[in-house]
Amino acid sequence: MNKSGFSILLFSGDYDKCLAAMILANGARDLQMQADVFCAFWGLLLLRDPEKLSMEDKDLYEKMFTAATPAGAENLPLSKMNMAGAGKQMLLNMMASKEAPNLVEFLNGAFHNGVRFHACELSMKIMGFKSEELLPGVEVRNVHEYLQQARQAEIQLFI
Amino acid sequence: MNKSGFSILLFSGDYDKCLAAMILANGARDLQMQADVFCAFWGLLLLRDPEKLSMEDKDLYEKMFTAATPAGAENLPLSKMNMAGAGKQMLLNMMASKEAPNLVEFLNGAFHNGVRFHACELSMKIMGFKSEELLPGVEVRNVHEYLQQARQAEIQLFI
Amino acid sequence: MNKSGFSILLFSGDYDKCLAAMILANGARDLQMQADVFCAFWGLLLLRDPEKLSMEDKDLYEKMFTAATPAGAENLPLSKMNMAGAGKQMLLNMMASKEAPNLVEFLNGAFHNGVRFHACELSMKIMGFKSEELLPGVEVRNVHEYLQQARQAEIQLFI
Repeated sequence: MNKSGFSILLFSGDYDKCLAAMILANGARDLQMQADVFCAFWGLLLLRDPEKLSMEDKDLYEKMFTAATPAGAENLPLSKMNMAGAGKQMLLNMMASKEAPNLVEFLNGAFHNGVRFHACELSMKIMGFKSEELLPGVEVRNVHEYLQQARQAEIQLFI
Repeated sequence: MNKSGFSILLFSGDYDKCLAAMILANGARDLQMQADVFCAFWGLLLLRDPEKLSMEDKDLYEKMFTAATPAGAENLPLSKMNMAGAGKQMLLNMMASKEAPNLVEFLNGAFHNGVRFHACELSMKIMGFKSEELLPGVEVRNVHEYLQQARQAEIQLFI
Repeated sequence: MNKSGFSILLFSGDYDKCLAAMILANGARDLQMQADVFCAFWGLLLLRDPEKLSMEDKDLYEKMFTAATPAGAENLPLSKMNMAGAGKQMLLNMMASKEAPNLVEFLNGAFHNGVRFHACELSMKIMGFKSEELLPGVEVRNVHEYLQQARQAEIQLFI
């Protein structure tokens, strides 16, 4: 069996952890490794298209959930020291002063560099997300597909 | 060396992360992979039997800890948006409306499907948990046993 | 390819998660496995030398960040039940009563046992940490170096 990939199960919807995931996935592509990011639960929030959120055909809880969660990647909170956004703004300022890209730029770079994004089918169903609400190019996959892909990879991380 | 297993080190005691761990472990069993879940620190809270919590032979801190932590799997909080339980209730409602099993059902399924559960010996000692307080079928293991088993697995995740 | 290592990407700066990382890395060394701990983002807080924090040549945000973050390993908060330090103190008391080492003792043991520590170059740059502020023996590495090392390991965890 030829193992040559890098696999992330992105469960977290934190700005800093998503940033780490994107830096790793882009780094793997630089090394010509196949890179797969399987987004589940809060990790799906990275893949929502802020322009395409919809309340159509959603039940009450799904509507509440759509409204209560960050609309897109740049709106995600930090995993710690978020301090109602003040800590996050500080991190963003520190990143900008070093001319580091922000999360959406890293995410766009990842799509452009051939990182493959997958959305967890069961999480989509539970949270009431529709595939039309996600960024273009994302494939919906189930847990068996994740496991089959991850076991071929050289590195598997849960973030 | 024949690698064919799936290994989780479950450190988190969050409802949503434990749910993810159980869905993954059950999925691995569907694919005929051996699946091992090694519970450490907060992850031990998944394995406590709510009927068997005991204050006997515990020192003051151990009693406080027993009393201050969730008594069983269904009492675990969400890793985010828990909002004093309101966010968790919303998730439970969303799961129920899709007829998704709850955590205890996934956990029972995992035992039934042959997922092997291990409790970290050092964590048990520090937190003052006794093996009689855990669900039946859980084996107490040390860190060397975890590492020896994990290095045989195809996929290792820290959750 | 000869795989015989244990690799941790330590992203978290939580006391309990750092403790788990050190116990695992020391355990891997006991088994004669090479053990590498690559510290990124909040994980860098484990490697700061409390005696060597400096405000020199730092911009305003870097100074604020230096001041707002825990000065060394023993000052890190718990990932949950920290309760403004009360929960952490309870854990420390429980550990001490079992004569378990604290985090700094595990960390020193890890250096002594030959665990190799790496600091993420990009995280250092963004947070404004200088290599002189870190514990002696820590090497600064980039994401490509992490990936190249991790793909040689038998076990890779993101903590």
